[in-house]
Amino acid sequence: MKKLLFIILLVFVTQVYAEDGSRLWLRFSGNGNAQVTTKAKGATANIAVRELREQWKGAKITLNIARTKETNLLGDEGYLIKGNRETGVSISSSSEKGLLYGAYQLLRWQETGLGDEINISESPRYELRILNHWDNLDRTIERGYAGQSLWEWEKLPSVISPRYEAYARANASININGTVLNNVNASPQILSAEYIEKVKALADIFRPYGIKTYLAINFSSPAELGGLPTSDPLNKEVKLWWKNKVKEIYKLIPDFGGFLVKANSEGLPGPQDFGRTHADGANMLADALKPYKGIVMWRAFVYNPTNEDRAKQAYQEFTPLDGQFRDNVIIQVKNGPVDFQPREPFSPLFGAMKKTAVMPELQITQEYLGFSTHAAYLATLWKECLDSDTYQQGKGSTVARVTDGSIYPQKHSAMAGITNIGTDVNWCGHQLAQANWYAFGRLAWNHELTPEDIVNEWITLTFGEPDNQGNSQNLNPKLSKLMLESREAVVTYMMPLGLHHIFALDHHYGPEPWCDVPGARPDWMPKYYHRADAGGLGFDRSSKGSNAVSQYHSPLKEELDKPETCPENIILWFHHLPWDYTMKSGRTLWDELCYTYDRGVQQARTLQKSWDELEPYVDAERFREVQSKFKIQTRDAVWWKDGCLLYFQEFSKRPIPYGIERPVHELDKLKSFRMKISNTEKADINQLYNK
Amino acid sequence: MKKLLFIILLVFVTQVYAEDGSRLWLRFSGNGNAQVTTKAKGATANIAVRELREQWKGAKITLNIARTKETNLLGDEGYLIKGNRETGVSISSSSEKGLLYGAYQLLRWQETGLGDEINISESPRYELRILNHWDNLDRTIERGYAGQSLWEWEKLPSVISPRYEAYARANASININGTVLNNVNASPQILSAEYIEKVKALADIFRPYGIKTYLAINFSSPAELGGLPTSDPLNKEVKLWWKNKVKEIYKLIPDFGGFLVKANSEGLPGPQDFGRTHADGANMLADALKPYKGIVMWRAFVYNPTNEDRAKQAYQEFTPLDGQFRDNVIIQVKNGPVDFQPREPFSPLFGAMKKTAVMPELQITQEYLGFSTHAAYLATLWKECLDSDTYQQGKGSTVARVTDGSIYPQKHSAMAGITNIGTDVNWCGHQLAQANWYAFGRLAWNHELTPEDIVNEWITLTFGEPDNQGNSQNLNPKLSKLMLESREAVVTYMMPLGLHHIFALDHHYGPEPWCDVPGARPDWMPKYYHRADAGGLGFDRSSKGSNAVSQYHSPLKEELDKPETCPENIILWFHHLPWDYTMKSGRTLWDELCYTYDRGVQQARTLQKSWDELEPYVDAERFREVQSKFKIQTRDAVWWKDGCLLYFQEFSKRPIPYGIERPVHELDKLKSFRMKISNTEKADINQLYNK
Repeated sequence: MKKLLFIILLVFVTQVYAEDGSRLWLRFSGNGNAQVTTKAKGATANIAVRELREQWKGAKITLNIARTKETNLLGDEGYLIKGNRETGVSISSSSEKGLLYGAYQLLRWQETGLGDEINISESPRYELRILNHWDNLDRTIERGYAGQSLWEWEKLPSVISPRYEAYARANASININGTVLNNVNASPQILSAEYIEKVKALADIFRPYGIKTYLAINFSSPAELGGLPTSDPLNKEVKLWWKNKVKEIYKLIPDFGGFLVKANSEGLPGPQDFGRTHADGANMLADALKPYKGIVMWRAFVYNPTNEDRAKQAYQEFTPLDGQFRDNVIIQVKNGPVDFQPREPFSPLFGAMKKTAVMPELQITQEYLGFSTHAAYLATLWKECLDSDTYQQGKGSTVARVTDGSIYPQKHSAMAGITNIGTDVNWCGHQLAQANWYAFGRLAWNHELTPEDIVNEWITLTFGEPDNQGNSQNLNPKLSKLMLESREAVVTYMMPLGLHHIFALDHHYGPEPWCDVPGARPDWMPKYYHRADAGGLGFDRSSKGSNAVSQYHSPLKEELDKPETCPENIILWFHHLPWDYTMKSGRTLWDELCYTYDRGVQQARTLQKSWDELEPYVDAERFREVQSKFKIQTRDAVWWKDGCLLYFQEFSKRPIPYGIERPVHELDKLKSFRMKISNTEKADINQLYNK
Repeated sequence: MKKLLFIILLVFVTQVYAEDGSRLWLRFSGNGNAQVTTKAKGATANIAVRELREQWKGAKITLNIARTKETNLLGDEGYLIKGNRETGVSISSSSEKGLLYGAYQLLRWQETGLGDEINISESPRYELRILNHWDNLDRTIERGYAGQSLWEWEKLPSVISPRYEAYARANASININGTVLNNVNASPQILSAEYIEKVKALADIFRPYGIKTYLAINFSSPAELGGLPTSDPLNKEVKLWWKNKVKEIYKLIPDFGGFLVKANSEGLPGPQDFGRTHADGANMLADALKPYKGIVMWRAFVYNPTNEDRAKQAYQEFTPLDGQFRDNVIIQVKNGPVDFQPREPFSPLFGAMKKTAVMPELQITQEYLGFSTHAAYLATLWKECLDSDTYQQGKGSTVARVTDGSIYPQKHSAMAGITNIGTDVNWCGHQLAQANWYAFGRLAWNHELTPEDIVNEWITLTFGEPDNQGNSQNLNPKLSKLMLESREAVVTYMMPLGLHHIFALDHHYGPEPWCDVPGARPDWMPKYYHRADAGGLGFDRSSKGSNAVSQYHSPLKEELDKPETCPENIILWFHHLPWDYTMKSGRTLWDELCYTYDRGVQQARTLQKSWDELEPYVDAERFREVQSKFKIQTRDAVWWKDGCLLYFQEFSKRPIPYGIERPVHELDKLKSFRMKISNTEKADINQLYNK
């Protein structure tokens, strides 16, 4: 009778969780009664104990705070896990945070079925693994496609959403240890006393999960919020204002992480407004934060509408300042020199600043990869960047190694990711986009993990049914293949061969290579980037053109400079090639462009079909949600192909080869179509198709 | 100098004709100075002379009115053509009309390059070859997709559009000898004195081209127009009213052809309103027309919302009346028993009425085949019907032979086609739809012509450049293949396997198998026809069902009655089959349905591609117009496939096989989509796709 009751209870408990994606990759299957012992008493250790007690299915576990040579070497976030599932496991670390990370690692190990014996020792490759929220105080999210901002500013600090802790837990489970709460296009208001109280409420929730809170600041805050006549960073009163403001913050949030700054970029204020340099501005803030061990993350995303190639400007601006920054300043550099395109070469700033800490900024939210509608697993994109060889200190000077402290001694190493998180039940808008949040955390912890490793782990945790081995045998290889091919598919139907930034103005969802707004900044117009004309296509950044190649180190510089040696998947980034240029396939550039877009459509169809084939192995709820997104993605792929080919054909004056599927759209219709999406709204993508 | 002037003039003259399709198949290339002699002096002979003088490029021509044994055998429309392009040609006929037809035949022969020696003798298979215009007096056209009605009623009889004669000439060139000017849903007003004057003006223009004018009449005209208390056909006053009305017409139009009547059908009045039979009604009109040699074409398109299968009702209504009709009555029967579907079995009325003249009614306008947006060459559809064996008088009793007078002696033989003509510059809305007008005329003249013969002729005349043999060598086989496959493609992506009438209510353009209007006539609802349920799909018209098969003659009846012997391309017309029924391919019915719809989409893409491949051989103007239509057709094919499969899947509860392209639409979106097309408007098909 008791057993029957238990079974009934279990069924009930099991059914509490709808498969709506809200549980993310945290679908552990424990019985809630594992034996866990520890002498550690802190809040973080308590979480580790609770997680293991509820989720662990093996023999007893001991959690040790240990200051041994081994644990010291692993730092205060590393951990050792030793033992056997059947006889008992111990997790050791020099800190409670290490124990928590070890606990999550052990649970991953359990769920992914890696055997009975465990012997893991791990420590992070990047010290700071930070999410950037581009969340505005009105709860809109710039480039957010998963609902509103999680932060209910209007109710904080009194009302605490249970999602705050769920958010912290999810981040902790993938070793993310910092979060910037607000948009880099920052409102001065975030530093008001009222808002600092609200931030404190969140920081208090995040702290036990090992997550530090950071804020993006507006450089004009002393004037706009403080009422000073200037925000000149060399002005004494300004310095004092910041000093006091920092003090005020740390009084409430003693482990506050520091500031993220977008300055003199896209119209935002900055030190140059007062004739000062980025170093002057960053150092002034760094000095204020220094006593509290706070840091400044200063973004290198700066460019102006001059005659100079936009792709060159960040390098030109920042390399002369190398050596001038305080040691608690990190220059935060987007992976590519332009702006999170589906494919870019890496930014030449990586490795070029030899006396300054530089951190990669990756975009988890899919601003340029189909929002939360298209499936695009981004670990492949990020690894492409991290594994790129800068040659700055000889062969092997990969982007990862010039930023993680391996090559350049630097006080801090860090990686930032702009989140895709919002109030949607599934957190990220698209069920499969959760993998990008997951992959960001895992790569920041260990950039040597492969996209395959990460996605297989994520699939098992997110879709796996541990009691049904048949499921993961069927699901994993197929879904993994789909995910690993997904970003390349998006590149192929959107902007193959190095094409970039030919998106619709402003919202960056669909194609608009024809976009031309009279009086607009030329470097915000697609024509600036594709340079289509009767002579050919592409942006000449070779030594005969803008010479952006010169910002790269030899031998890469020379390789990129010649069309014959420049990789074809990025060739139109660096070269303006004639329409009849012979590609490696033997086809002309025009034909290759046509065949490539067509292949992109076929790839989108293959992704869609691959997902459909998974129906038997995925719960109906998530299956259908993703299925409906793939329908739109497939149609969008055709839209991209038709729009781009029909537009470029106006310049190439060449026929679309009969070997490919014919366009089904009219260029003039596509040109006149306007999607009603603002920068910050959750897009109703279906407006594209009224049936 | 003179030569130069001549060349300049020639260039100018050549450029007068834009290739906008307005010239139809009448793009003869003569020099305007052929030598033509004849003793005939009538208006019709004059036209023959003019056409030949302007277009003929060979040696002199003689036109002879001859009452020889040979010409008498050919009747008053037949002709003999003999001679040699280099030495001279003679055309002989017992009538001027025969000379005119001979002239057009000779020009076709010239343009299609059939050699130098000519020896042709021809006479028509159907005596009456009649266009039916469904044109309303307000110039809208029911099921018209090529603009407004040609007939400018408001300006007639005083203003005469030059298009009236162009229309007559085009019809004469393909031997069409009659036209019903107005919609069968007829307004009584057409018989008012005012309108008869207008009709006379048109008849006067058509007469020299050998075209008789007919009118569709409203059976209630005596009451509604004449003010009588009844329109009972046995009422003396009613009879007198009609007698006088006919007299009034013939006074102005001495060769008036007669009446077309839609009675007791879809709410229109008829003899049954007064307890009389169709025969009573038809005979009353026939008696009035008889003195003038006028005829009555009485439509068999009758059905009522009873429990009886709609497909059976015309047969049930009319076969008991066999033998009761006057000899100047012809029963006009649609090719299929329901209503001009993309594919139907032939109507069982053909051959079943053994003592009554029966004429096929074909639909040239594409009410159910994609309007003037989809390409569908209908000669294949019509030939499928005409060649169908009714077995009514043994094997070989094809629909053609039981209606053309070969098997049943009957005073008149006739074929009607509902036109696709309107005010559009290209006449038919779609350049390729001109082929259907052309093919109707050619088949009515000689139903033994093959669709291939006709389309090759049409292509050469319509797109050919006689001085450029390379063109026709490249164009003809490819375009001919496209045309010949086009109707089957439409069937395949719209309603394969015998599915029928699952169109959107009212406008009949897109798919709406789910359509269900509370309180609507059940036999106007798609569900009436597809009968999808958990058990299967299709309308059981076998001996176990509605027994519509019983209306066919053995051995066809037995063949259709069993799923194993019923042709699969019509199987769901006659059978309700379980979803797991094994088709000849070995697939289940459900899978076969899926694969077939998918093949339809591929066929649409192939048509589109085939057209694109013709770009080098077609003038840019017509090429682009047709190209843009194929884009919509391809997208529509996907719409059809997705809509039908996703809807039927709700019944089959079976997965869409992974071997086919995935649906890209959501069923609920498709269900909620409403096209804004009325019955009579020219549709803006692009409303489907806002980009």
